Amino acid sequence: MNQTIHVGLLGLGTVGTGVARVLLEKSRLLEQRIGARVILHRVCDRDLRRSRGFRLPAGLSTTDPYKLIQDPQIKIFVELIGGIEPARTFILEALRQGKHVVTANKALLAHAGHELFDVATQAGADLYFEASVGGGIPIIKVLREGLIANDFDTILGIVNGTSNYLLTRMREAGISFHEALAEAKRHGYAERDPSLDIDGHDASHKLAILALLGFGIQARPSDIHIEGLRTISQADIQYAEELGYCVKPLAIAKQVNHELELRVHPTLLAKTHLLANVNGVYNAIYIHGDMVGSMLFYGRGAGQNPTAAAVVSDIADVARHLSRGVSSLIPLHRRQSHRILRLRRMGDIETRYYLRFMVTDRPGVLARLAGVLGRHQISIASVHQKERRAARIVPVVMMSHEAKESHVHQALRVIDHLEFVKQRTVAIRTEAPRAK
Amino acid sequence: MNQTIHVGLLGLGTVGTGVARVLLEKSRLLEQRIGARVILHRVCDRDLRRSRGFRLPAGLSTTDPYKLIQDPQIKIFVELIGGIEPARTFILEALRQGKHVVTANKALLAHAGHELFDVATQAGADLYFEASVGGGIPIIKVLREGLIANDFDTILGIVNGTSNYLLTRMREAGISFHEALAEAKRHGYAERDPSLDIDGHDASHKLAILALLGFGIQARPSDIHIEGLRTISQADIQYAEELGYCVKPLAIAKQVNHELELRVHPTLLAKTHLLANVNGVYNAIYIHGDMVGSMLFYGRGAGQNPTAAAVVSDIADVARHLSRGVSSLIPLHRRQSHRILRLRRMGDIETRYYLRFMVTDRPGVLARLAGVLGRHQISIASVHQKERRAARIVPVVMMSHEAKESHVHQALRVIDHLEFVKQRTVAIRTEAPRAK
Repeated sequence: MNQTIHVGLLGLGTVGTGVARVLLEKSRLLEQRIGARVILHRVCDRDLRRSRGFRLPAGLSTTDPYKLIQDPQIKIFVELIGGIEPARTFILEALRQGKHVVTANKALLAHAGHELFDVATQAGADLYFEASVGGGIPIIKVLREGLIANDFDTILGIVNGTSNYLLTRMREAGISFHEALAEAKRHGYAERDPSLDIDGHDASHKLAILALLGFGIQARPSDIHIEGLRTISQADIQYAEELGYCVKPLAIAKQVNHELELRVHPTLLAKTHLLANVNGVYNAIYIHGDMVGSMLFYGRGAGQNPTAAAVVSDIADVARHLSRGVSSLIPLHRRQSHRILRLRRMGDIETRYYLRFMVTDRPGVLARLAGVLGRHQISIASVHQKERRAARIVPVVMMSHEAKESHVHQALRVIDHLEFVKQRTVAIRTEAPRAK
Repeated sequence: MNQTIHVGLLGLGTVGTGVARVLLEKSRLLEQRIGARVILHRVCDRDLRRSRGFRLPAGLSTTDPYKLIQDPQIKIFVELIGGIEPARTFILEALRQGKHVVTANKALLAHAGHELFDVATQAGADLYFEASVGGGIPIIKVLREGLIANDFDTILGIVNGTSNYLLTRMREAGISFHEALAEAKRHGYAERDPSLDIDGHDASHKLAILALLGFGIQARPSDIHIEGLRTISQADIQYAEELGYCVKPLAIAKQVNHELELRVHPTLLAKTHLLANVNGVYNAIYIHGDMVGSMLFYGRGAGQNPTAAAVVSDIADVARHLSRGVSSLIPLHRRQSHRILRLRRMGDIETRYYLRFMVTDRPGVLARLAGVLGRHQISIASVHQKERRAARIVPVVMMSHEAKESHVHQALRVIDHLEFVKQRTVAIRTEAPRAK
């Protein structure tokens, strides 16, 4: 007979409801595949009256989280309420009670992962978090187990579906950022307050987790350079398109010499780049490893079913181990790569830049711009000036060669004070495909 | 102290050499990540004098496989000699000796998987085979573990790098099949006898494994319809291109009603299809599941390092389990999906067809072709006749609507006997992107 593992589920929001439904509706299939019976023992939510589109069996629900945390029958505690507190407290108490924890809480992992991992290790408990990055894409398992023989030098992710949807729609439909945002809200792809998504915070939480698994680097949220989408205009999308690029919201972890770059910002990608064709709300994670070379993992990064499937895969792993009397089989994260000594300061990164200057169109302007850039060791790969309207404000678009971030900053500080520069210059970094 | 797990490695070819090197050169990293010491205890190859670019420690090598199979210290037996026999015999004996087995042998799994799984189950031993499909892409782990909550309806794979390279080069360079093949041989992407790759056998072995993991269907190689690349001409590549398609070598497992289609053949894909941009020697596997929707896993499908990395990830899993005193944690494959009753007969499949007729260009030809197709319930979506040369042989290209394979066969049998049809008609199936 298969052993029975009891699960307590905290949070019946979108994902929690999906998890409850799968555990109930696919229980026989899951038992066959796991080799153990997984029972949804108790479910906790503050508001149990809300309709969730399906009926929980009677007697399963409570509004008191401690009915889960203190129930000795429950071996796996699933946290799906999100946010830092009280999720942190509940998880820590569950771990101290010897429960194994499954969570999708990327914000909590990014802010307090260190503490959670320590307590889990002391308690000999498992802490699984497949649903925290990439929704239904099993990227955590891939990084921790499947690619175990690899050392990585690059992880690039389109990990925020809302941001990718906005930039995709701006390109496809030629609409403004605000029009795209309004559309995303109508479709339920953006929150009423979209800041977490469009300003890069959500992506930075996911990047912190990827950096931990890929490089063993415990980065604080403040260690990650973040830029959101609000500065990207339709004009930039179009100019990028004409130059053979698209603009994608990237989370970047990249080893350069003995330093690790961690940054989240809209990025120009050549249309031939693997990530350039990841559109709409889809996510994808590009990885380059010393053994496997380039890989891409693509799928739905959010939504009830994909995310619930990821949570259930964690429950399955922990339940399978528990039914055989073992836990803590998989190290929580990699040890810090011996090849990485520190995080790279943002001023030190080097990339090619897309620069859009808004200038009064008169003779000598180009020479003045080029002069400032040259004095800051920024060399120009190409210049594009489509519109010519005497004495009007026109865009001048330049692509630079590889230049140092701090030099570009200094140059733009000078340029944005020139009398013929009429708006703040837009600078977008590019990401080149790897040489094979 | 970490436990020590001894590994015996049979076969020092390209992949075996890569595995030996990783186990020796990354031993400390692997120990940290696995939580157990993995020791390369003994290596067996018929020819130990061949240079392999690195030096094995003294005393490790033997030419006698039974020095591995009968060594009680060896817990994990890695088979990398390929082919059916003697690999089958060695694996069966190792399993019966209570050893756990890691193999990359897709031909053996496709032909004798049933027997190997039975013996492994009886012996309580593990049989892992991550390297058998998709090289460095951890698709086996993804299907068995990461996507455990999913039921699939479609798995499409570009799983033979040689075939993909040939079709990619034909499109990019405008060269013939034979020119592309000669080039692939020069680059080491094709064997001297390339039949296993270009005639679809290798892909069918991999498809059998994917069908087992994705649908629980144990298909014999003879159950899979196979067509190779030799019939694809430069003309077809160009016409496809003009119609918005590319030709890709696909392995297809698709549930339709209660039947499963299993087939390997060159396929027309719309250029917007996720698999359309998988080029060169790269592999990719597209999966559609009820929970996650569409996913794509992309990477190097062959080569020493990617394949060795996959083998080592299997060794890592088994070693980690053994060090904790457990094995057989992961079911060898899925039980047969309750939604699939049988394999679909090839004559029953329905797809859109690309048809290229080579006809004498004279009035009435189109009407005759259309008449035969119509009588066989094949309706035409579009007709393309580029070249007009009176009384010469010209191509007429048609795209059909969805039509039944058996009807197309019958119609072409009639058409290929018409007096104005001068060559055997080329028919290529298409694969449409899934509706979301």
